[in-house]
Amino acid sequence: MAETGPAEARPGSLSGASLVLTGIGEIVTNDPSLGEGRLGRLRRAALVVEDGAVAWAGAAADLPEGAGHERLDVGGRAVVPGYVDSHAHLVFAGDRSEEFAARMLGERYDGGGIATTVAATRAAPDAVLAANLDRLVSEALESGTTTIECKSGYGLSVTDEERCLRLARRSTELTTFLGAHVVPPDWAADRDGYVRLVCGEMTERCAPLARFVDVFCDRGGFDADEAAAVLAAGSLAGLAAKVHGNQLEPGPGARVAAKAGALSLDHCTHLSDADVEALAGAGTVATLLPAAEFSTRSPYPDARRLASAGVTVALASDCNPGTSYTTSMALVIALAVREMGMTPAEALWSATAGGA
Amino acid sequence: MAETGPAEARPGSLSGASLVLTGIGEIVTNDPSLGEGRLGRLRRAALVVEDGAVAWAGAAADLPEGAGHERLDVGGRAVVPGYVDSHAHLVFAGDRSEEFAARMLGERYDGGGIATTVAATRAAPDAVLAANLDRLVSEALESGTTTIECKSGYGLSVTDEERCLRLARRSTELTTFLGAHVVPPDWAADRDGYVRLVCGEMTERCAPLARFVDVFCDRGGFDADEAAAVLAAGSLAGLAAKVHGNQLEPGPGARVAAKAGALSLDHCTHLSDADVEALAGAGTVATLLPAAEFSTRSPYPDARRLASAGVTVALASDCNPGTSYTTSMALVIALAVREMGMTPAEALWSATAGGA
Repeated sequence: MAETGPAEARPGSLSGASLVLTGIGEIVTNDPSLGEGRLGRLRRAALVVEDGAVAWAGAAADLPEGAGHERLDVGGRAVVPGYVDSHAHLVFAGDRSEEFAARMLGERYDGGGIATTVAATRAAPDAVLAANLDRLVSEALESGTTTIECKSGYGLSVTDEERCLRLARRSTELTTFLGAHVVPPDWAADRDGYVRLVCGEMTERCAPLARFVDVFCDRGGFDADEAAAVLAAGSLAGLAAKVHGNQLEPGPGARVAAKAGALSLDHCTHLSDADVEALAGAGTVATLLPAAEFSTRSPYPDARRLASAGVTVALASDCNPGTSYTTSMALVIALAVREMGMTPAEALWSATAGGA
Repeated sequence: MAETGPAEARPGSLSGASLVLTGIGEIVTNDPSLGEGRLGRLRRAALVVEDGAVAWAGAAADLPEGAGHERLDVGGRAVVPGYVDSHAHLVFAGDRSEEFAARMLGERYDGGGIATTVAATRAAPDAVLAANLDRLVSEALESGTTTIECKSGYGLSVTDEERCLRLARRSTELTTFLGAHVVPPDWAADRDGYVRLVCGEMTERCAPLARFVDVFCDRGGFDADEAAAVLAAGSLAGLAAKVHGNQLEPGPGARVAAKAGALSLDHCTHLSDADVEALAGAGTVATLLPAAEFSTRSPYPDARRLASAGVTVALASDCNPGTSYTTSMALVIALAVREMGMTPAEALWSATAGGA
């Protein structure tokens, strides 16, 4: 899948073969200088696509002369940027529907099911992992996602993390090394040894295949010192930091993320006032994943509080085999509005520009 | 869309061209005599399709000899019956996204927005209504719905109700006359006159185009006597009864439905113990529409209580322009499990056999 950001093009010279969309009832540009509000909304608009990218967007009346070898009238429809899904776990094998059914009958989620997926993923041949990944990415694309991140994290050995990242790059350049998802069962007796492995050989082998490093800093995952070490090792290897944190209980995730200058803290359900301030101060994006709260019947994070404190809010799917069964950013937007008090406009911004 | 019920076929003689699905990991037959539980689940199964209908389903080992001019290996996938969406409002024009945004900011839903859609629908040419209907039906079909009901109810004049039903029959034979959706603004000064119109000329002209008659018996709709009169007139004209009721507040909907021997009471959020008993006694199906509660941020009905009382529970989308923005029965099932305490198996049964 190509990495295509939201429309940011301005009027200018156009060249080459291009497609002009006309008859746009309303366009969302995510550029406040082009239209109304943070979404840069504009009615009666036109859009020029050149070489698969947006070359120009604006009022239909301002369409540059000579634009468009081909024209397509979209009949008054709205045009919005492709969704940017900045948090997804798409390389895995196996099925955890029984865990879901048990949870719906009242069992608590504590991340324990990850080991089930690790065992299935390690045992699966590349072709099985690739077919599952391709299925999920196609599904995402069909539902409007044009940019998707993909994490490792179900291999949890040097070989399998490397294998998962190599497979992930079939679909996206936005790959994230998540060797520090949990301590795998085969390292349960030596968690320090596992952290050393992640920070050492695993980072060395995986960094060339990834853009980001991520760590699960929460109950059942890694503590503040371990998480900081993982991020530092990744950073030395050229990876930008992301953190899973404050999902299951209050904890050090937000502080670790802010201190490391992480791009994002993901989940953000249990934040103290100091955590929120730290995120705002560090410019760390709060990535909210309401499909996970939906699928685990957990409390939703407080999007209003984060936005009021000046934290940038992104929305993403968290698609994974245990706790979020969807790639649909439309569902994520619906949940953000229904359950987290975001307005439809805020949610659309967070699902497009927010994660970009 | 053809009316296709859940798989009910048994082993028997097969004739003509047929397709055999092999390699089915698990099949849901909805026939307890064919497999486990109410879903009639069977592992390692096969399925024979003849002339577009299920001719045989059973264990792969029992596949009748000579079956199958064509074979398709589904690679271990599950096969489930098509979803039966027994409550949908698909003939309409216009957009009520502003009403949705206002409701998400705290405004209460009381059915008032229906008049907005009535005005837009009356003003729309057939081609606009047909294109919107076709779009929604295609979307439903793509998401696994093979049987769908479609109501009128946004015309609310003899001509427009007849027109909406005629259009609905493009897509389904399961059409429902809902002239008694609300009293339209042009009859506000004479609601008795409107009820007489519905029971008289409107029923007479619409009955040949419909299988069912429905009435909104709730706050903002029709009272018990009015609703009973509408159902009686429909019944005389050969239509089976359905009732929208007990959605917005406790009220007479369930009693009216049970007394009229209605096929279903739809919504069912506010039911007394006597209401639940009446439904059970009359064999009236409780059709739950959780996408409406999702879209209106309303309390969900208590599916467990209904099931425990022996009431048959169906799930449907309620797709409509004001209070349920989806044709996705998968989302309806997810909401039923997440928010109403149904098990995944119960929800699947209710979304397939329940409405059939």
